[in-house]
Amino acid sequence: MREALKQARYAFAEEEIPIGAVVVLDRQIIARAYNQTEKLRDVTAHAEMLALTAAANHVGNKYLSDCTLYVTVEPCVMCAGATAWAQLRRVVYGADEPKFGYRRHGNLLHPKAEVVTGVLGAECGEIMREFFARKRK
Amino acid sequence: MREALKQARYAFAEEEIPIGAVVVLDRQIIARAYNQTEKLRDVTAHAEMLALTAAANHVGNKYLSDCTLYVTVEPCVMCAGATAWAQLRRVVYGADEPKFGYRRHGNLLHPKAEVVTGVLGAECGEIMREFFARKRK
Repeated sequence: MREALKQARYAFAEEEIPIGAVVVLDRQIIARAYNQTEKLRDVTAHAEMLALTAAANHVGNKYLSDCTLYVTVEPCVMCAGATAWAQLRRVVYGADEPKFGYRRHGNLLHPKAEVVTGVLGAECGEIMREFFARKRK
Repeated sequence: MREALKQARYAFAEEEIPIGAVVVLDRQIIARAYNQTEKLRDVTAHAEMLALTAAANHVGNKYLSDCTLYVTVEPCVMCAGATAWAQLRRVVYGADEPKFGYRRHGNLLHPKAEVVTGVLGAECGEIMREFFARKRK
């Protein structure tokens, strides 16, 4: 999650909503990404989506059943759906996202996915709050 | 929807699950795509996702509020979430998808989105059934 937070800081520096993600396989990071919806002018360019695509390229397989996704903020509906298609069995996130997170719609992850929440949650949430506080100024 | 169905046929010919999508703005098609999850080995390469990204590139804006998405099959959770982020106000689809469609999770589209279902539904469903019947052989 420290590496995902580093990715979130890259997003912050580029005036993107500061969310970062990494994909881990066999205790190795195989993909890193941060949100790039502004730069790419593309709502699908969330950190998780970019990380899943990069991880699939890395392993040469669209299914990532043995991988873990670490993401600084609770995934949205779109990203949760993508993790389900990729058959990800483990999703770890930092800060809750009550408004845009997937959780208020039920479990949209893979039925067999394990979820771990609150990992470095304070730091992951703080960078988001700082970003939106600056935006409002 | 005829053009979306044509896109679905391209997918079929390439042994992809045959789903096609187009994005329309001011009665003009500005993006066309078909499912390419096999070729790209990427679960995020659904027809709708590729069409939304292409449409955003075309208009130079990640928000597609004035656009309509036509897709041959009821979108999945991931794609529904993407249309919500893109603020799409109109989604038209052909065949229902009771298992993988977004609808069983509630309304995951943009809150202001209008949905039209069943357009060329028989043809859109038939190409799917034919694809999976061949696969089973």
